[in-house]
Amino acid sequence: MTVSSDVPQIESRIVDAVRDFMAMEAGQEIAPSCRTLADAVSMQAVASSEGGKRLRARLVLDAFDAVDRHRHAAPAYRESVLDLACAIELFQTAALVHDDIIDESDLRRGKPSAHKALAAAAHNPAIGKGLGIMLGDLLATASVDLANRAARGLVSSDAIMTAFLGMHREVEIGQVLDLAVELNPLDDPERLVQASLNVFRWKTASYTTIAPLRFAMLAAGYGPDDADRHALAIGKPLGQAFQLADDLLDVIGSSRNTGKPVGGDIREGKRTVLLADAIAASDERQRGILIDLFEAPSRDDAAVKQVIGLFESTGAIDRSQHRIRTLWNQAYAAISGLSLSADAERPLIEACRRFVPLAEA
Amino acid sequence: MTVSSDVPQIESRIVDAVRDFMAMEAGQEIAPSCRTLADAVSMQAVASSEGGKRLRARLVLDAFDAVDRHRHAAPAYRESVLDLACAIELFQTAALVHDDIIDESDLRRGKPSAHKALAAAAHNPAIGKGLGIMLGDLLATASVDLANRAARGLVSSDAIMTAFLGMHREVEIGQVLDLAVELNPLDDPERLVQASLNVFRWKTASYTTIAPLRFAMLAAGYGPDDADRHALAIGKPLGQAFQLADDLLDVIGSSRNTGKPVGGDIREGKRTVLLADAIAASDERQRGILIDLFEAPSRDDAAVKQVIGLFESTGAIDRSQHRIRTLWNQAYAAISGLSLSADAERPLIEACRRFVPLAEA
Repeated sequence: MTVSSDVPQIESRIVDAVRDFMAMEAGQEIAPSCRTLADAVSMQAVASSEGGKRLRARLVLDAFDAVDRHRHAAPAYRESVLDLACAIELFQTAALVHDDIIDESDLRRGKPSAHKALAAAAHNPAIGKGLGIMLGDLLATASVDLANRAARGLVSSDAIMTAFLGMHREVEIGQVLDLAVELNPLDDPERLVQASLNVFRWKTASYTTIAPLRFAMLAAGYGPDDADRHALAIGKPLGQAFQLADDLLDVIGSSRNTGKPVGGDIREGKRTVLLADAIAASDERQRGILIDLFEAPSRDDAAVKQVIGLFESTGAIDRSQHRIRTLWNQAYAAISGLSLSADAERPLIEACRRFVPLAEA
Repeated sequence: MTVSSDVPQIESRIVDAVRDFMAMEAGQEIAPSCRTLADAVSMQAVASSEGGKRLRARLVLDAFDAVDRHRHAAPAYRESVLDLACAIELFQTAALVHDDIIDESDLRRGKPSAHKALAAAAHNPAIGKGLGIMLGDLLATASVDLANRAARGLVSSDAIMTAFLGMHREVEIGQVLDLAVELNPLDDPERLVQASLNVFRWKTASYTTIAPLRFAMLAAGYGPDDADRHALAIGKPLGQAFQLADDLLDVIGSSRNTGKPVGGDIREGKRTVLLADAIAASDERQRGILIDLFEAPSRDDAAVKQVIGLFESTGAIDRSQHRIRTLWNQAYAAISGLSLSADAERPLIEACRRFVPLAEA
């Protein structure tokens, strides 16, 4: 694994790509009276791009190194893989900017979310939201632009572009499904679990694990069908486990600074697998309390604490930990389906394990 | 010109492309409880794609026929040009869906705007807006996907993809500038005119005239620099004239059904070239009235009528008509820079003239 040496390169490549894309030079005829706000958007594009853990970019590179085994040895080739890896990070930033507008989130990674920062710059909340929608659009375009340049330097460039646009599509559909889940009734927990795991496949696994593995395999010369099949077999359970672990961290907290207060999902009334598992395992009294609390327009600190207590006492937290372990075992088994040498398989397993720290518990 | 035979093909190609892109088949694992809303988004994608005048797609095809002169004679080749032309229309729909959210417009082409229709489907305005943001994202991805497929069948496929993503970027920056113009003070009309014309170049000319001409030339085998230079020389003034004419129609009305009530821009308090020209040509009393009316939080029917009266009496309407004719003459002159045969030049001029019906006045 080349993690320690890759991260600074990933950071600088992302910032350079965003700056290049957002640059509005003198020759590009921006009226002076619009400059200030245009510059605020460019600066926010960079600010929003900073501070990610780069899990997705690192998975592309580590998986590529594992499956390629130096067949594409020219340094320029791995540079193109790095660009493709960074393109996923740009896309994630684009998706988060829109996500924060949809969820009306004021904070992201401990700083004002993009539309909030832009509202402050424009002294106008409505214009801030409009600029936020456009910033998300710009970053999405920037991600495709970077992927398009990167793909030209790689084998299977057509398949890579098709896969990259397919990833955009899946995440966007996933967001639609995520909004649909919020309209699901709470009286059928099994249905809610299935719907939530389904959202995880589209909204999270798509670009977090499936696409990075697919790009790595395509860049290493795997045929599109093989890359597709293996990436899905490993990446779907891995990405679902990752999202379950993320939802669990929201409840049990973490020593890592996630930038989010504990219980944020509960406060927002989010329909999660934890909630569904808690309802499914509740007695009548507990079920009544949970449904009342989640159907209320808002939840205060006492309510959040009460919900966390019920997630524990009903065994929902144990159930999620069990689900994570099961999904991780599926991903692990699918990795062996690649029939890599032990030397190649070990770092790939380590790269994948980063997505589910809780599976070791 | 092959207009009459092209339009039905354009329509059916657009609907097919949107349907294919939005199709979520049984094999694609959509949880049943999310189906209804996912289907509502797919249906709205088709509904939002209908009813355009297809000016941009027609310009691609007519300009291609003019500059190509049957050098690329295989029918499959022109099919790819048609797909590329339709990709611009998909992109326009994406941009309009986001635009309507930003402007809080309830109507589009006489029907509920996408986020309004989706709010009705979800029985929830906030979720409707979230789904609208996602629908715009999906259609933007669909446009790049269609362009990517089309470009593979054309010469200069790399230059075409770069140009297509450049078009996305320019329109997105144009939207940012458009929001910035709304924050411009009204006491410097010359500055407002320059800022507005600048917005027209980015937000309108970019994808309405410059990109269609550029794609046509690239597909016909022009080198990227030549295509860029000619498309800008013709397309920039043509697109600016088109937007001026559109703003003028908003005030003086039209026999065509634009789906918008007369004076809509005035009612919204939009900073337009007409307004700036009216302020510039006003005496002190008129200027005071205009600034007061446009700085008010809203304008009623009487105010709209009064503003239209001032646009007439100050000569702002004549000034816009003069601006349109001047810009059209620039575009016309730039067409001769292509040195086409008279047989090729005539249909290209006719295709361009469709964008400025008022220039004939």
